[in-house]
Amino acid sequence: MTDGFTKDLAAFACGSINPSLLATEITRLSALDWLACGRAGSSEPVAAIMHSLADSEDGAPQATLFGATAAPARMAALVNGTIGHALDYDDTHFAHIGHPSVAVFPAAFAIAEWKNKDLQDCLEAALIGMELSIRLGLWLGRSHYQVGFHQTATAGAFGAAAAAGRLLGLTQAQLAGAFGLAATRASGLKAQFGTMGKPYNAGIAAAAGVEAAQLVVAGFEANPTALEGAFGFGSTHHGEGNVHQMLEGLGEHWHFETVSHKFHACCHGLHAALEAAQALDLAAPEIARLEVKTHPRWMSVCNQPEPDTGLGAKFSYKTVLAMQVLGIDTARLQSYSDAVCADPRLVDLRSRIEVTADDSLRETQAVLVVVKKDGDRREASHDLQQPASLEMRTQRVRAKSASLIGHEAADKAWAILGQGGSVAAFTALFA
Amino acid sequence: MTDGFTKDLAAFACGSINPSLLATEITRLSALDWLACGRAGSSEPVAAIMHSLADSEDGAPQATLFGATAAPARMAALVNGTIGHALDYDDTHFAHIGHPSVAVFPAAFAIAEWKNKDLQDCLEAALIGMELSIRLGLWLGRSHYQVGFHQTATAGAFGAAAAAGRLLGLTQAQLAGAFGLAATRASGLKAQFGTMGKPYNAGIAAAAGVEAAQLVVAGFEANPTALEGAFGFGSTHHGEGNVHQMLEGLGEHWHFETVSHKFHACCHGLHAALEAAQALDLAAPEIARLEVKTHPRWMSVCNQPEPDTGLGAKFSYKTVLAMQVLGIDTARLQSYSDAVCADPRLVDLRSRIEVTADDSLRETQAVLVVVKKDGDRREASHDLQQPASLEMRTQRVRAKSASLIGHEAADKAWAILGQGGSVAAFTALFA
Repeated sequence: MTDGFTKDLAAFACGSINPSLLATEITRLSALDWLACGRAGSSEPVAAIMHSLADSEDGAPQATLFGATAAPARMAALVNGTIGHALDYDDTHFAHIGHPSVAVFPAAFAIAEWKNKDLQDCLEAALIGMELSIRLGLWLGRSHYQVGFHQTATAGAFGAAAAAGRLLGLTQAQLAGAFGLAATRASGLKAQFGTMGKPYNAGIAAAAGVEAAQLVVAGFEANPTALEGAFGFGSTHHGEGNVHQMLEGLGEHWHFETVSHKFHACCHGLHAALEAAQALDLAAPEIARLEVKTHPRWMSVCNQPEPDTGLGAKFSYKTVLAMQVLGIDTARLQSYSDAVCADPRLVDLRSRIEVTADDSLRETQAVLVVVKKDGDRREASHDLQQPASLEMRTQRVRAKSASLIGHEAADKAWAILGQGGSVAAFTALFA
Repeated sequence: MTDGFTKDLAAFACGSINPSLLATEITRLSALDWLACGRAGSSEPVAAIMHSLADSEDGAPQATLFGATAAPARMAALVNGTIGHALDYDDTHFAHIGHPSVAVFPAAFAIAEWKNKDLQDCLEAALIGMELSIRLGLWLGRSHYQVGFHQTATAGAFGAAAAAGRLLGLTQAQLAGAFGLAATRASGLKAQFGTMGKPYNAGIAAAAGVEAAQLVVAGFEANPTALEGAFGFGSTHHGEGNVHQMLEGLGEHWHFETVSHKFHACCHGLHAALEAAQALDLAAPEIARLEVKTHPRWMSVCNQPEPDTGLGAKFSYKTVLAMQVLGIDTARLQSYSDAVCADPRLVDLRSRIEVTADDSLRETQAVLVVVKKDGDRREASHDLQQPASLEMRTQRVRAKSASLIGHEAADKAWAILGQGGSVAAFTALFA
């Protein structure tokens, strides 16, 4: 690993930037998406638990919580980071191997609300934080993820520190110190997947970033090379050390442009197949046989053949494809129910769907082959890494948000995120 | 790694215990020692920074801070964990490879004060937490430490969770969940050694333990095998997986009995030599040549030949040995000054001292050979792992505490720690 890149990340995080129009627009979309996920997630059981922690501490009302009142910025980052990921419906970046928005927006909005920052400055700080999270995810690489770390949490803590630190006006040297502190604070294991610990990992990343930035403002001195140096985060945490990949085009090329929004309230492994099915525009009675080809990784993740619960449905190719063909909205949380699994039309259609592994596909790809009763055979494929036009993405994120929090709140949030809205107006929509 | 030991640790942490008299007495001594280090540490720069974080959150005054008023339990654990380690003068356990008290007492006292627990129950919970920290340190082993993790922080988080969880009345299953949460929360890098990040690592461990226990009380569900299971803390964090060593004699043999208190306010690598020198009872004028033999590890850690600052003196065999021979109290913080380094008597004596590496010695051993001007040659050795009698340890911890916080406070604290004292009376001495 090359020494000394923390100063480059710090310079990027505190300097003036010139993001692409697309990166700026996608940041707005992701802010809307994050708000919708957080507000909808605030009725999940883990939300009440996080609220009770905040209540018990009874701290200064610096920043609004999803589904509740307000708490100190650090606590708000913890609570909102957790709640925003409770539904696992927030955005994903495949190069990051994680969810960039959910660890960074809670930190950015907590500081921005507390310190009365401009909304556009808040969004810019968040974009920088998310871009750095993705790039640190690239630096840590697949080895870090495969051994058991949750990039959303680990790389995310540095993104949160960047966003919080920029909004607090840290200098380059101070930001390097904040990254050093985040290096000793960042944590999060994949061992928590399938439990409340998964969203909590996002919360601890957001809170670690806020705490690191606050401490540095107060004069805290930490090792500013604790990411890349001896005994640093990379070597201790099984990082691949892809320095070149991380730094390439920093400030010029924006990885955040290719963040992927979830448009179906189920496991991400199912999404490419659902998108491909949409292109086929199928009707249940005409289908003789529908074959799904997918990357082998997903066969053990989301290929439950005949689930009988709403939760099981979220991990079942056959079920979600049958739902979509039958016109059941896969974007709505409420669509995934025990009742839908028992629907005779769905059970019948499901029996005509087959899932096969195809190792020529990428993890983000799926191919569907339909054979109709009249003998017609058609094929469609989709790759989540080839995003649609900005117009299409905007339309779909807005529609998804409306289905999560209602048209009125979704439209209002979208209007605020345009020029002229304020942080306070946006956070007022958290509850 | 053998699966399933978390339930055994949890059973130990919530069950009734029958500690040895020595373990119980050493717990009291370590509580006194921790209090003295924390109160003395509260004038260090990092203390003011941690106080400012607590002030900014303005939370419920649940637990007293070293050198300040009160804060929520979780914040108190963070602040007191950091301040208690600010001087690096708290106790050490060589099998743990870390400082067991400094991550556990802050968690135990924060919860005990908040929830009005009995002092003896608090001390018992702390003993359990510290014993578990040491045993988890054994489980993680030297590989974990050598790659760059700070056992005080990592293993310490589980000890803190055990102490906090026991005081909050968690069941065995709940404690396993708290350990699972601590597994995704525990962090701390040796890359912070030499910065404020080192004591902060102890603080984050204490706070992680409190937060995990509080969340579980509120209903949080986490993976209860996140320590030893697939993608668990052991495999992600370069653990050796010494399960047998960890569990051997749990509840019967108390590793905490052999915790080592620091009696000199300098690097621990110097202590065996200082103890050996005490046995030789030397006078400066009679020394022709004094040779120190030490483990090779220490040659790059604390063998500054001619430091000219108080901080440098803390890492110099020649300087601290000369100080001791000259009757300068090596237990007092104020003894290590720029002025003492320039003292002509010290400079003269230092020139007659030699330091050599001897790989037949353990890290805890030192051998001193003195050749006197009259030709007499004497030798003395000391091993920090062979602790003195309880009586001697008590006398020395009390003397050290008196030199740090004054006789009155030290005597008062010692009296409270006996039968009959209260948590509130003890924490009232924090400031």
